[in-house]
Amino acid sequence: LKLAEPSFWHRPLDAFAVGETYTSLGRTITEADIVIWCGHTGDHHPMHTDAEYAKSSRFGQRLAPGYMVLAFSIGSAIARDATHLIANYGADRLRFLRPVFIGDTIKACVRVEEVHPKAADSGVVTFAWEISNQREEMVVSAGLKFAFRREA
Amino acid sequence: LKLAEPSFWHRPLDAFAVGETYTSLGRTITEADIVIWCGHTGDHHPMHTDAEYAKSSRFGQRLAPGYMVLAFSIGSAIARDATHLIANYGADRLRFLRPVFIGDTIKACVRVEEVHPKAADSGVVTFAWEISNQREEMVVSAGLKFAFRREA
Amino acid sequence: LKLAEPSFWHRPLDAFAVGETYTSLGRTITEADIVIWCGHTGDHHPMHTDAEYAKSSRFGQRLAPGYMVLAFSIGSAIARDATHLIANYGADRLRFLRPVFIGDTIKACVRVEEVHPKAADSGVVTFAWEISNQREEMVVSAGLKFAFRREA
Amino acid sequence: LKLAEPSFWHRPLDAFAVGETYTSLGRTITEADIVIWCGHTGDHHPMHTDAEYAKSSRFGQRLAPGYMVLAFSIGSAIARDATHLIANYGADRLRFLRPVFIGDTIKACVRVEEVHPKAADSGVVTFAWEISNQREEMVVSAGLKFAFRREA
Amino acid sequence: LKLAEPSFWHRPLDAFAVGETYTSLGRTITEADIVIWCGHTGDHHPMHTDAEYAKSSRFGQRLAPGYMVLAFSIGSAIARDATHLIANYGADRLRFLRPVFIGDTIKACVRVEEVHPKAADSGVVTFAWEISNQREEMVVSAGLKFAFRREA
Amino acid sequence: LKLAEPSFWHRPLDAFAVGETYTSLGRTITEADIVIWCGHTGDHHPMHTDAEYAKSSRFGQRLAPGYMVLAFSIGSAIARDATHLIANYGADRLRFLRPVFIGDTIKACVRVEEVHPKAADSGVVTFAWEISNQREEMVVSAGLKFAFRREA
Repeated sequence: LKLAEPSFWHRPLDAFAVGETYTSLGRTITEADIVIWCGHTGDHHPMHTDAEYAKSSRFGQRLAPGYMVLAFSIGSAIARDATHLIANYGADRLRFLRPVFIGDTIKACVRVEEVHPKAADSGVVTFAWEISNQREEMVVSAGLKFAFRREA
Repeated sequence: LKLAEPSFWHRPLDAFAVGETYTSLGRTITEADIVIWCGHTGDHHPMHTDAEYAKSSRFGQRLAPGYMVLAFSIGSAIARDATHLIANYGADRLRFLRPVFIGDTIKACVRVEEVHPKAADSGVVTFAWEISNQREEMVVSAGLKFAFRREA
Repeated sequence: LKLAEPSFWHRPLDAFAVGETYTSLGRTITEADIVIWCGHTGDHHPMHTDAEYAKSSRFGQRLAPGYMVLAFSIGSAIARDATHLIANYGADRLRFLRPVFIGDTIKACVRVEEVHPKAADSGVVTFAWEISNQREEMVVSAGLKFAFRREA
Repeated sequence: LKLAEPSFWHRPLDAFAVGETYTSLGRTITEADIVIWCGHTGDHHPMHTDAEYAKSSRFGQRLAPGYMVLAFSIGSAIARDATHLIANYGADRLRFLRPVFIGDTIKACVRVEEVHPKAADSGVVTFAWEISNQREEMVVSAGLKFAFRREA
Repeated sequence: LKLAEPSFWHRPLDAFAVGETYTSLGRTITEADIVIWCGHTGDHHPMHTDAEYAKSSRFGQRLAPGYMVLAFSIGSAIARDATHLIANYGADRLRFLRPVFIGDTIKACVRVEEVHPKAADSGVVTFAWEISNQREEMVVSAGLKFAFRREA
Repeated sequence: LKLAEPSFWHRPLDAFAVGETYTSLGRTITEADIVIWCGHTGDHHPMHTDAEYAKSSRFGQRLAPGYMVLAFSIGSAIARDATHLIANYGADRLRFLRPVFIGDTIKACVRVEEVHPKAADSGVVTFAWEISNQREEMVVSAGLKFAFRREA
């Protein structure tokens, strides 16, 4: 029942050090999540919304949308009161590696990959962002970039 | 009031040709969208949920979450009955270029960049994916990759 | 500030008399309602979701989906603890007469049109169902049919 | 895994011919759908929201609200970028024929019944609209009417 | 299948008598309810959202948030067209006594405890508010206070 | 733009000291919040859902539901990864002091009032919980109680 280290996200850019790691809370993917996500984003592909279609597909059941898994991992990892976080900056090498199904529990393991000052007051931290399921299989990996403030 | 070409997405991998383009429907970003997205994903950063905080930030108002803008553009662009689409494959060079605010209307302009057969029955199409607002300013760009089936 | 008569809906079939009337609570149509409805039902037509498209249409602004207005009026009119109500039965002559916009407040005026015993223990009540906005313009009309239990 | 014909909905009024048919995507009815629908519309009848009450009713389990099934079938059938579709017009002979339960997958089979020009630039198409479940039992039938533009 | 007495809530302050009782409709707690509530309120504690974490906790499974159970019981008990109800006033001795799990059905048993005129036109009714599950175990109890209008 | 102290919530029972204070993030109350809350809880009182009714009431506009304001403040204040938090325990002297309207931004100011060990491994912390709006007016106050684990 050990949970995450709260102070990881509450730092200005220059306090992040390459190689530091952080593990997010887990989150269980529910059928309700797929219903809400597909409705909200407009992604009504039958792999998500039609159980009969999914049963006869190569996956044998409905899939969680990949960007939902990514968005949940960001929401679960980053402290909402991350004092110096400015905004999303971008991503590279995002790959959806394995299917995520209803009932799976995902969490993000994050490692500081690069700390890049861009201006006197801000810069970009790149994280090696790996999402795994409850069987410790990696389901998504990416290099995610976020803009942080620098200490005055 | 011209809308999109419906047959663009209903093709197997090998029928996509590099350089073809497609423009999605538009979607207006509402305050309700931000409330629903932040709740669902757990991204409760005050830039999205606290109007007083946002007022005193560099942006002067609440921001739409970047991954919400991306997910909406995918939901608005790709036909839900895209016969040969298998799943998301990944993304490269995703960059959030400009802020998106409540009331903005975004749409995606998509160009086939690469058609890559990977197996006898499937492969990956990469799209140069550019999201712009109602002032024709580009707000997000990426190379998005989707797996498609090949014709038997 | 006068509200509705609570006992109207709490009766078995044979206690309804042709000509009786009931006026529902009002409900204000919000932008959030359109976002939630269009997502949930998958009706993402740009008349509902794209403010720029709607601006250049004959209506000049986004429309509330007609079946949402109908469903809200049913939810607002019928007491949730209507003891003898079994289920929806159907509708005839449903017509969407006028557009409903964000900010309009709709309410249903209902008149018992027919009481039709179908079996020893149940039957169908038909209501002349008229939905109007805050300017007393009729926006939807129909003959709605609901199955009710009969007194033992 | 065959999906629908994309060009069916992208036509002006006069291009529809009586007798043409279209089959929508399927959609699986989930417990989450009932929770979201009943909340949003205000239809909190215990047949939808109280599993204990439903267990002792004639149906033995919770029912999907009939108008939700209808609204889902419209959202699943009609292409969101249906170029010439103006708005809902109405319905006749709508009947809820069989109960729909959690886990059922519904789809709409649609046949053009009447093409009725009403003005130089618009008219009404009436569809014989039949919704069936995964056991090919018809659960809802209606004559649904939509307003379409005519070609200039 | 007996439901509630509709006229209980449709009275001005002075018509309530100490000792009167009322039993609400039941409501089944679903996984979707927890997803929606936790997202909307921002209460993403892993006892609600992480099935693996909950499995290894003292409760062995995910918990329904206590204030959700309370809010559902208020929504299920009080008639939405309660003519003389002004607003929530407060609560005393609120205690969450037993865990509520997915699939439980809760209902409120309410007893008028005090009728307190505060002004010529309004006052406060205090209800002994007891929420129980389908096994008749009390899960929440409180003294809830609501402001009502007095008859002119 | 100063945000909250992240380590406040990440402590076992005995590490809390009477008199310590914490101020939550703010959260802006939107029209969408009221739509979602009233739907989800079933509290469709016209003071929340009918703008015309609310306009003619003593408040002159729609009210945010009091328990929504309370639930938001809990979700905004308590870190979701609060390592030693077990569950809600209860509340005393909860009072809704002033109306909260669409557009108001609320935050909670919390003070440790009592630390009460109840067993070898757990106990209850009582917080003086005051919610104020952006004009620094107190809108809700209560003594909220939460169960925490004690250090092994």
